[in-house]
Amino acid sequence: MSAPAAYDDLRNRLADICDLGGIGQLLFWDQQTKMPVAGANSRAEQTGTLSKLSHQLFVSDEIGGLLDELRGYEESLPEESDEASLIRVARHDWNKARQVPPELTAEMRRSSSLALRAWAEARPKSDYQALKPHLEQNLALRRRYVECFEPADEPYDILLDDYERGMKTAEVRAVFERLKEGLIELLHAVEPADTSPLERVFPQEGQERIAMHVLDRFGFDPAAWRIDPTAHPFMSSPGHKDIRLTTHYNESGLHSLFATMHEFGHGIYEYGIDAGLARTPLGTGASMGLHESQSRMWENLVGRSRPFWSRFYPELRQTFPGMLDDVDEEAFFRAVNAVKPSLIRVDADEVTYSLHIILRFELEQELLAGTLSLDELPEAWNARMKEYIGIDVPNDADGVLQDMHWASGHLGYFPTYALGNVISVQIWNAALEAIPEIPQQVGEGEFAPLREWLTENLYRHGRKFTPVEMLDRITGGPIDPEPYLAYLRDKHLAAATA
Amino acid sequence: MSAPAAYDDLRNRLADICDLGGIGQLLFWDQQTKMPVAGANSRAEQTGTLSKLSHQLFVSDEIGGLLDELRGYEESLPEESDEASLIRVARHDWNKARQVPPELTAEMRRSSSLALRAWAEARPKSDYQALKPHLEQNLALRRRYVECFEPADEPYDILLDDYERGMKTAEVRAVFERLKEGLIELLHAVEPADTSPLERVFPQEGQERIAMHVLDRFGFDPAAWRIDPTAHPFMSSPGHKDIRLTTHYNESGLHSLFATMHEFGHGIYEYGIDAGLARTPLGTGASMGLHESQSRMWENLVGRSRPFWSRFYPELRQTFPGMLDDVDEEAFFRAVNAVKPSLIRVDADEVTYSLHIILRFELEQELLAGTLSLDELPEAWNARMKEYIGIDVPNDADGVLQDMHWASGHLGYFPTYALGNVISVQIWNAALEAIPEIPQQVGEGEFAPLREWLTENLYRHGRKFTPVEMLDRITGGPIDPEPYLAYLRDKHLAAATA
Repeated sequence: MSAPAAYDDLRNRLADICDLGGIGQLLFWDQQTKMPVAGANSRAEQTGTLSKLSHQLFVSDEIGGLLDELRGYEESLPEESDEASLIRVARHDWNKARQVPPELTAEMRRSSSLALRAWAEARPKSDYQALKPHLEQNLALRRRYVECFEPADEPYDILLDDYERGMKTAEVRAVFERLKEGLIELLHAVEPADTSPLERVFPQEGQERIAMHVLDRFGFDPAAWRIDPTAHPFMSSPGHKDIRLTTHYNESGLHSLFATMHEFGHGIYEYGIDAGLARTPLGTGASMGLHESQSRMWENLVGRSRPFWSRFYPELRQTFPGMLDDVDEEAFFRAVNAVKPSLIRVDADEVTYSLHIILRFELEQELLAGTLSLDELPEAWNARMKEYIGIDVPNDADGVLQDMHWASGHLGYFPTYALGNVISVQIWNAALEAIPEIPQQVGEGEFAPLREWLTENLYRHGRKFTPVEMLDRITGGPIDPEPYLAYLRDKHLAAATA
Repeated sequence: MSAPAAYDDLRNRLADICDLGGIGQLLFWDQQTKMPVAGANSRAEQTGTLSKLSHQLFVSDEIGGLLDELRGYEESLPEESDEASLIRVARHDWNKARQVPPELTAEMRRSSSLALRAWAEARPKSDYQALKPHLEQNLALRRRYVECFEPADEPYDILLDDYERGMKTAEVRAVFERLKEGLIELLHAVEPADTSPLERVFPQEGQERIAMHVLDRFGFDPAAWRIDPTAHPFMSSPGHKDIRLTTHYNESGLHSLFATMHEFGHGIYEYGIDAGLARTPLGTGASMGLHESQSRMWENLVGRSRPFWSRFYPELRQTFPGMLDDVDEEAFFRAVNAVKPSLIRVDADEVTYSLHIILRFELEQELLAGTLSLDELPEAWNARMKEYIGIDVPNDADGVLQDMHWASGHLGYFPTYALGNVISVQIWNAALEAIPEIPQQVGEGEFAPLREWLTENLYRHGRKFTPVEMLDRITGGPIDPEPYLAYLRDKHLAAATA
């Protein structure tokens, strides 16, 4: 059955909108890496205009009409086909976008922009009170946003769905409850590791060299990829086969190397999406959590593994001559895997990271439900930091003010980070089952089999399936925290007693 | 009188369109400097989508209605006011854009894209026959384009107006006739200069350093400007106070330094435009010719002048230690000003450059009128190269195939280069009359007075005035080739007999 004209029409309209999306990524990438600072005002206008036009094109009656007209065609096709998936996902997005009045969208954008500016001023001064009215406004707008939709099992479901299509808060809560318990138990059991091997000055030139070397082995293709320095690392894909990593060089330690491997994971996901899905709403990762599972996999399951360092530690030593003579491979491995309660989420280790997230997940649900007030937030934050991670928060700058997410209005985003951790090990185990030689291959600097398996089983499908469907296809089951906990126990308890 | 609501509406609509224009500049800049090559397909789609949407937004009935509604308001204002100028220029652009059926615009874009690809293949093979059918198609489309408009004095006027608003072919022809005569006369009179001082290998690192040093003196503000390497240098301004120069490093000679000064001239023009004109159709240079007058002014009237080299030659020598010990300042000055008939326009000196242009200007008028056929074009090209510049063209690659302009369909563009040369000296003389100390200041590396005078008298006005109006405001008269000829005679005959 050849596609009806309405399908081509829909596809062309969505292609235009995807083009604007790719352009938006370029505007952001350029602003963070290349744009002269004085260009910021023009760039803000351009970004706003682009979002506005893209939204207008998408929520049009014409697209709604085509989606209606194509119901029969969709039902005549296998659910997994590109065509049925495109119609299904576009309808989901269109329904959501149509529920929200343009005035509310505009108000959320304005409020977010003002709050981010206030946050940037308030954080260095540790002045929570200065940010609070903005958070109040963001929260009120998010409640109005939730009210735009048919009631879900719980209001937070609506927010979560923006990042994890089809996922329920109750599922995440169940996973996080078990995770929290297991992580706190583990945190009490691990021995502190000696982190002095990393507390040295590693010249930037060497950091660039070793990162490029690792990327080259991972599968960074210079015809399609680039890497640039920035303040806060991210991955951007302004077009199909146009993958841009960013990293941040700090000579105290080797953070940039792990940040680079992390962003590579995001990049290889976008790189592996089928060419046939380009310029459609299916041409990106399945969800934020699945995306994060890949960044965490390449950063941690590959990049902090024993086989990885057995292959790359000699080269790291050569890259920084003389600097690591007193550190053997085992000591280095333990240093890059050290577990240590700390204040700042983005600096956290594999064990405590998800606890930082669970804390935020709990607090934002309570804020949304109104069972916690913004007045009580800093105290609740500090109490839970003590309870879960065991440390005292000395000031709000390093506490409740550390992240920009709430200032930007993105409630519902935080859980995707910990979901990524959990899912990364589920997928890793499935890969190991299919190719048991992966650890040896990693030890030989050979990443193609892993990369190709991930491409075949995950990357190429883009956004055709929901995250839960995608995971079920790969692992045959739902999200499950046990493999992640087992992985951590195995690595960290073994490392501590090695 | 406060602006009516219709004016705000018009301004907001035009602001969106200008945002898309700035974004288009970024897409181009990125493609030429940063984009991984594999991103080319996505980028082509994005560029096409952006042009299409921008065109659709602009030619709307709503904008036409607002322009009608605002006639009374426009007439109530001084012609020079920002508001009246905005309405006047937007009406001119809208009327032109509305005359052209979208199908023709699309066909011209498609034909241009195919022809450019054919040109890129045909040029290295010197295969004019392979390009000819594409030129035939471009020419036919340009004739259809001309027919979309009310008949002008001559068909070429319509094309010229796209680059030099309001200018007539007859005016340009009169200027070029005198210019041709004067330049050929001068070409016969100049003595060949010794160019061996430039026929050396100048390491790229030194070229970058001296270019940055000169830019820094010129007024390159790192908060608003950047410079990157590319294959064919250009200037791009993706937003207000976001100025991006590009240059090309070739270690055989110092071309990059002159290319950089050239692009600085384009950049400082955009940089100097009033902030109040940003996001309006007035927020760019008055015309291609006036833009070129500034690139040529900073490249030639400043960058190839005696005072400039008396200031910078010692630093150039220090930048390339030992390399220029055998070359004194006078010899170097003569080398950078050497006049020598050559095949390639972009490598031509100040005397022959405009002859290359006049040849193209004549040929494209004859092609459009049908008095010259595409079969006869290479022969006509070669004959005129011999007649005007005195050299034999050995092959079409270095002859009729050397430029991409005709493949891209841009008939009417070439004359703006020579107009730029002519106008550059007229404006320079006006600046000298106002500030006679400019040459001394240049000799002291002090460029602020010149830059500020140009900003006050030219740059800040953006596109408010037509090029002829703009020139009249600055010089009190029309385009006049005599000052340019006098400048060349003064420099080149004096240099030859120094």
